[in-house]
This record gives sequence, structure tokens and C-alpha cells, in this order.
Amino acid sequence: MENDEKKGMPIGVFDSGIGGMTVVREIMRQLPHERIIYFGDTARVPYGSKSRETVTRYSRQIVRFLQTMCVKAIVVACNTASAYALDELEGEIDLPVIGVVKPGAKVAAQVTQNGRIGVIGTQATVGSGIYTTYIQKINPRAKVIGKACPLFVPLVEEGLWQDPVTDEIAMRYLGGLIDSEIDTLILGCTHYPLIRSTVGKVMGEHVTLVNPAYETARELKELLHKHGLSSDRQPQLGTNWHQFFVSDGAEQFIHFANSIIKYGVLSAKVIPIEDY
Amino acid sequence: MENDEKKGMPIGVFDSGIGGMTVVREIMRQLPHERIIYFGDTARVPYGSKSRETVTRYSRQIVRFLQTMCVKAIVVACNTASAYALDELEGEIDLPVIGVVKPGAKVAAQVTQNGRIGVIGTQATVGSGIYTTYIQKINPRAKVIGKACPLFVPLVEEGLWQDPVTDEIAMRYLGGLIDSEIDTLILGCTHYPLIRSTVGKVMGEHVTLVNPAYETARELKELLHKHGLSSDRQPQLGTNWHQFFVSDGAEQFIHFANSIIKYGVLSAKVIPIEDY
Repeated sequence: MENDEKKGMPIGVFDSGIGGMTVVREIMRQLPHERIIYFGDTARVPYGSKSRETVTRYSRQIVRFLQTMCVKAIVVACNTASAYALDELEGEIDLPVIGVVKPGAKVAAQVTQNGRIGVIGTQATVGSGIYTTYIQKINPRAKVIGKACPLFVPLVEEGLWQDPVTDEIAMRYLGGLIDSEIDTLILGCTHYPLIRSTVGKVMGEHVTLVNPAYETARELKELLHKHGLSSDRQPQLGTNWHQFFVSDGAEQFIHFANSIIKYGVLSAKVIPIEDY
Repeated sequence: MENDEKKGMPIGVFDSGIGGMTVVREIMRQLPHERIIYFGDTARVPYGSKSRETVTRYSRQIVRFLQTMCVKAIVVACNTASAYALDELEGEIDLPVIGVVKPGAKVAAQVTQNGRIGVIGTQATVGSGIYTTYIQKINPRAKVIGKACPLFVPLVEEGLWQDPVTDEIAMRYLGGLIDSEIDTLILGCTHYPLIRSTVGKVMGEHVTLVNPAYETARELKELLHKHGLSSDRQPQLGTNWHQFFVSDGAEQFIHFANSIIKYGVLSAKVIPIEDY
């Protein structure tokens, strides 16, 4: 296929559930000419408590589904899947693939002044040490301090984005990071950009927050450009310009997705992901 | 097989994850001569956000697994699976099966004085209206008021069983039930007995809390007696008297399970439930 044909093909984005919509939001902002095929694995969420083998198997199924939708590139918009499955996926498929971990790690390694970087995320992401690995490849003397924040996802999903309870939980989770004198903090879970202001308030102005969703969209832009795959099509919103798929609970997905992106998610289709 | 042989066989108990361990705790207390085979579907938790079809399919797989372990009866220790799958399971297998919903509903319908009963649980359990259905079969004039409390499970799993944050969230969730002047409240999620004291404090002494885990163990005792299946074996703790299986994350399961039951969960085995 010629690159000119490929340019018009969509970008596949997937996550364990709804959180990857913060990455979709950034892609929509930074790459408005690109069409997106999103898959949220709402039947099998969360990935954070699952083993490497399980997450890799699920990710392979989703990639097979996205390939049936003729995507030109794949964004793994899930920290756990990026940590566990990205390297294997890269070796198996003939498409550009990027995850959310490397772009966030790269920027954090570059912007820190004192070499002390915090990472917050699920138990799986923090426990995997994946951010530390990538940060230290770039900045071997960087000290990375991880902190799992298991209540942030349910608080975000309950809509308590700005709430005294979320403030209180944030103060408990982040106190140790403040004491560690980090100057950079990675929001290492796709839900966390939605409570960015709470985290910023607790950490203080001298701590730079790194949003991997933003950095991933930036890196995707460069990647498409490098491969000559950037779309120049005019977006046609209100049609099926973007398409959303889930493995369960389409109504619930649409409701929450529309609280994240102002552009309305008009519909979402349930597909039997285990058959892929 | 003679009933005398059957009596020594274990009881199968399953849940979407860890919460069913509160039912196990009650069975251990009330039926100390019974052996338990527990399965927690930790790879596919939570069921609350999944469709009826998915939950029924998962439940069938688990029942097939439990049947390979030669159980003499099955306890569906999960409100969502009891709501969605119990009736179908009852028609499909030749073993006594009980869920957690009917026993809790029966007691609530009996103990209410003013006919106003509250039910708290996941969105799925409350949305299904299953408690209302069973309560009104017994007490057609009862008024049932449901309230989903999505943050209770993550708060319990984070260990905040007695904590100001849990108090604050409980006050928000339960305020409407207090205004509704209920005199009976069903803890309609297997995690909730662990925050029973918080719920009791917020609701006040005049509201009777119904714990379906307790009522289910009581009904199981009657059911075994009726079928002549009660075990008279002497428990041999510290051996494999009870056995625990999960679909993922055995270490995490053991850790949390041991915070629920004083009797130590020594080991848990991961099995590939999707193969059943």
C-alpha cells in the first residue's frame, strides 16, 4: 500500500477501560486531522491487579482487533499494558507502536533539576519499576521514588475530581513524596490527569507535573511524521470520524467518556474481545 | 454415591474476588466441621460493571471448576452473580446451590417493623432490583430503597475500615437513606461487613443491619441438614482442610484474605478459569 493511502487510516488506541480517554483527549487536541479507533477493555478492567502473562495475552487480542480495523499505528494508552506488553507487541507486529511510559519517562528525566523524580500510579505500574528503568536509561543518576495510589482511580470514576475527600487522600499518599524532595512528578496512570489540580495543589508549585498523555500525543505526532503517515484530512466531527469500542457496558463508557472529552462520544460498540 | 460419603465432601464457595471471604468467615464460624473450596475470580473482578451474559458465563465456568473438586453444595458468595446467574445455575446443576441475596432479603423482610428497607451495594446489585424482588415476594407492601456505594469496596481494600475518610463517604452515601426513615439496612455487598461499624455509626442504633454473609451461612446449615449432607468430620486446621483458588494474583489474595479471617490462609493456587 502506498503511504498516501495509509495516511488516511485511523490510529488505534487502547486501554484497560476508560482512563485511556485522557490520551485520546490529547491526541484530539494535538492531532486534529487524525481519526481514532479506541478500544476500552471494560469487561476485563482493571489490568493493574493482573499478571504479566494475562495482560500480554489481553493486549495481543486487542491488537488483533485493531488490525481488523486497518489502523496505521497503535497507542498503548494504559500504563500496565505499556509496562508488561509493549516490548513483545513491538516485536510481533509490523506497525508503529508506542506506549505511555517511555514518553513520560523521557520528559521527566530531562526536566528534573535535582535528579529526584516521583512516580504515582497503580500498584502494578509502581511495582513494575518500569518508569525507573526508562528514566535511568536516560539519566542514570536520577533517583526515582514510586508511590501507589489505589484510591485515585475509584475517586476519579466517582466524579470527585475536586473534593475535600480527594484532597485528604492525596495528602496521605503524597506526603512521603514531598518529604523526599522530588522536583518532578509523573502522573503514571491515565486517570490522574483528571485530578491534576488536586495533585498540583498538594505537591506545590516547585514540583513539575509530567502528564504522560500529553507527552505521548506529542511523540505520536513525531512518529507519524517520521514514517510519512500524518493525515491531512479535514476532520468531520458529528459523523463516525472517531469510533469507540468496549468489551462491556457501552452506556456506562459513553457517560464517563463524555465527562472527559468535550467532543461528545455519540456511541460505543461492544465487541467480543475474547474471540480475537 | 451414598450420603455418608457425600457428607465428607467440601462446600464450593465462589466470588468475583476477595469479598466472598466474609461469607467464608461466617461458614467457618457456624459450620466448623465443613471443608471449603473457595474460588475468587481475581483475574476478572469486578463483576459489578459487567453484563448479565458475561457474569452468567463466568459463573458457569467457575461451577464447572468447583464440580471437578467434587463439592457437595455451592455457595454463590457474590451479590452480582447471585442476582444475574443463580436462577440459571439452579436449573443446570444437580447440586444444592444458594446465593447471598435470598437469605439477606428474607431476614430483612421479616425483621422490618415499618416496612422500609434500605439496600446498599454496587451499582449492578442495586440497579438489578434483585433485593426488592425477593423482599416483596415475602412482604409485598415493603418499600425498598437502594443506594449504590461504589467507593466502599476500594476503601475496604485499601484497609480504611475505620477511618475519617470512610466516615465522610458513608455520611454522603447514607444521608438519603436516613431521610427515607428506613428501619432495616441490608449490607448488599460482600465487602461491607468489614465496615459494618462505620455504617452502623452513621445509620444509628434504631436501624437493624442485615449481614447476608451471616444469613447465608445459617441457611447453608439448614440446607445441608435437610439434604442429610452435614459433615461430622473433625476439622484439621493447619493442613489443607480448606483450599483457596484464584484466577490471578495469589500473593495479593493471601495477604488480604488473612486480614479478613483470623485463621490463616496459608496458600492459594492460580487456575486458568477460562479453560473451564
